[in-house]
Amino acid sequence: MHKKHNFGAGPCILPSSVMEQAAQAVINWGGMGLSILEVSHRSPEFEDVVLKTQLLVRELLSVPDHYSVLFLQGGASTQFAMVPMNFLRAGEKAAYLDTGYFAQKAIKEARLFGEVEIVASSKDKDYAYIPDLFNIDNESVYIHYTSNNTIEGTEIFDFSATGVPLICDMSSDIFSRKINVNDFDLIYAGAQKNMGPAGMTLVIAKNEFLNQAKKEIPSMLDYRVFRDNMSMYNTPPVFSIYVAMLNLLWLKDQGGVSGIEERNIEKARLLYAEIDRNPLFYGTADVAHRSRMNVTFLAVNKDVEAEFLKFAADEGIVGIKGYRTVGGFRASLYNALPLSSVEVLVNAMASFEKIYSEKTVLELE
Amino acid sequence: MHKKHNFGAGPCILPSSVMEQAAQAVINWGGMGLSILEVSHRSPEFEDVVLKTQLLVRELLSVPDHYSVLFLQGGASTQFAMVPMNFLRAGEKAAYLDTGYFAQKAIKEARLFGEVEIVASSKDKDYAYIPDLFNIDNESVYIHYTSNNTIEGTEIFDFSATGVPLICDMSSDIFSRKINVNDFDLIYAGAQKNMGPAGMTLVIAKNEFLNQAKKEIPSMLDYRVFRDNMSMYNTPPVFSIYVAMLNLLWLKDQGGVSGIEERNIEKARLLYAEIDRNPLFYGTADVAHRSRMNVTFLAVNKDVEAEFLKFAADEGIVGIKGYRTVGGFRASLYNALPLSSVEVLVNAMASFEKIYSEKTVLELE
Repeated sequence: MHKKHNFGAGPCILPSSVMEQAAQAVINWGGMGLSILEVSHRSPEFEDVVLKTQLLVRELLSVPDHYSVLFLQGGASTQFAMVPMNFLRAGEKAAYLDTGYFAQKAIKEARLFGEVEIVASSKDKDYAYIPDLFNIDNESVYIHYTSNNTIEGTEIFDFSATGVPLICDMSSDIFSRKINVNDFDLIYAGAQKNMGPAGMTLVIAKNEFLNQAKKEIPSMLDYRVFRDNMSMYNTPPVFSIYVAMLNLLWLKDQGGVSGIEERNIEKARLLYAEIDRNPLFYGTADVAHRSRMNVTFLAVNKDVEAEFLKFAADEGIVGIKGYRTVGGFRASLYNALPLSSVEVLVNAMASFEKIYSEKTVLELE
Repeated sequence: MHKKHNFGAGPCILPSSVMEQAAQAVINWGGMGLSILEVSHRSPEFEDVVLKTQLLVRELLSVPDHYSVLFLQGGASTQFAMVPMNFLRAGEKAAYLDTGYFAQKAIKEARLFGEVEIVASSKDKDYAYIPDLFNIDNESVYIHYTSNNTIEGTEIFDFSATGVPLICDMSSDIFSRKINVNDFDLIYAGAQKNMGPAGMTLVIAKNEFLNQAKKEIPSMLDYRVFRDNMSMYNTPPVFSIYVAMLNLLWLKDQGGVSGIEERNIEKARLLYAEIDRNPLFYGTADVAHRSRMNVTFLAVNKDVEAEFLKFAADEGIVGIKGYRTVGGFRASLYNALPLSSVEVLVNAMASFEKIYSEKTVLELE
């Protein structure tokens, strides 16, 4: 059905079987004679979807019982503000790790609420690496990480305890690899990478931490309101939650997070190997911090960029253009992208190299 | 395809043709070889969807050029807080009309930001009518209305100028009837009634009014950020916007808002006539303020309720159970509900009356 190899950075590829089930539910959901788009969120059938989706999140990530699993709206960008709105009081200080574009956005929003200390930054090298953490002030009310930097192509693999509550934006790598939820006080993620379609946000938070939040927060910006109302204080993004459930069921069938992690490691290994081998391209991120989700690379000769994009498009490869501020290429290898698509890209890079070097030889003659 | 007569209060019925196009796009959107769920929101194809949807809103509601049309997330419940967060400063006062459950929710959130004056209320009669407006303090920074009270079954048909900026929650009657956008400074509406699936919020606002908003508001809660970024500061609810576009195209084909208004008037007339005629039922709202969208009624004999719900279900009628705090019945007659479904309900009420009175006679004999 899907002939394209979709390397888009998000909203991104989801499994074909999920698309087919979702389309069927839009016409007639479960034989109810109703579309999933027209059912009440208060119907027992949809309440069951919310519950199942929560349970799948718990099962796939081994979420401990003393954590809540919440579904919100507004994406990570809303979380950038909601985290400090709930947990950073005026006069207090929060620690932020500055690892790129989205980390900076989180920092900007937090500054509206209290003091922000950037405890480490990789800005000096255009965010091509993950900085080591030093000197976390124990008075910080939390420390904020961005586990995967979608634009810069870096990923944090080591979450060392710092002694202060750890909050992490996992928008672009949640469900791609095993994590220890116990390491974190609050995890948030826009759904539109490995969870489901755009329009929902996942939050996993330690109840004890949520209980420390400020009072007098607007209902829709108060995590406890979502927790106390099973994420249905108001009408939730019904379709996005439903498709997330389908996608998490698919993930479970793939051997869960550890099953998919093995395949994600293999996909990333294959592509980075070609980038390192192929004289026309080079990777931008430090090898130790290379993201498995977003592989960023440049052409040695900038003139080649447009040519390769066209060459790749002819092979059915879409979504590999680098982020506008960075340029070059970005191939996103999210869970649903099959190894075969990575093989197509790798082969295209090798074929292009061959054609390009023959052409160059010809031009030199 | 849809055999049920869906009178649900929202998420609610959408046209079958819209469901079919939406399902097709989930499989393969416009022959691109990609699902609508996996396309980038920054793709020219999706940017075109956002633009078209904005233009359809402008055309269908005759939105003047000096108003912005924005697509947000979080539903009306988020707007309850976002309106005062943007426009009500500490020490200032805002006027609210208290016409029911959702108006009260808006009032509760506004109180977090400044003084709230309830300038009129119909609480004395369980919100069965729309109160007249008296004595609007000119110092109020805005007045807030709820144009249609989904739970109580009342609707405001007269928006008299009060001399202060008018903000209106039109979640459940926008696109159902003609309005004069010039009467309002800001209109908001959760999409999941007459606009599209759950997961998006429409805001129509006078630019001059938006420019008066407070500074230092988190980006995702600042209307100007949405205005200045074509509603795509972050990843928008792609699928909800796409289906809204399909639905607004359908509405245009129906003769636009004036075409649908005529049919909505006829649908409501038919059902209220049966409620008034049928001795088993009675309407709850004052006749002058009866909602065309949500028709609320009770059984004269409370014992009849469960029986009629079952009887109606056998006729393929779903979603007519009244809101949990109110009981009785609520039949929502949103745009996509065909007149034929209303006829089925009216006939069911008449048949039920016949059976019930025969049974009662039998029991009395």
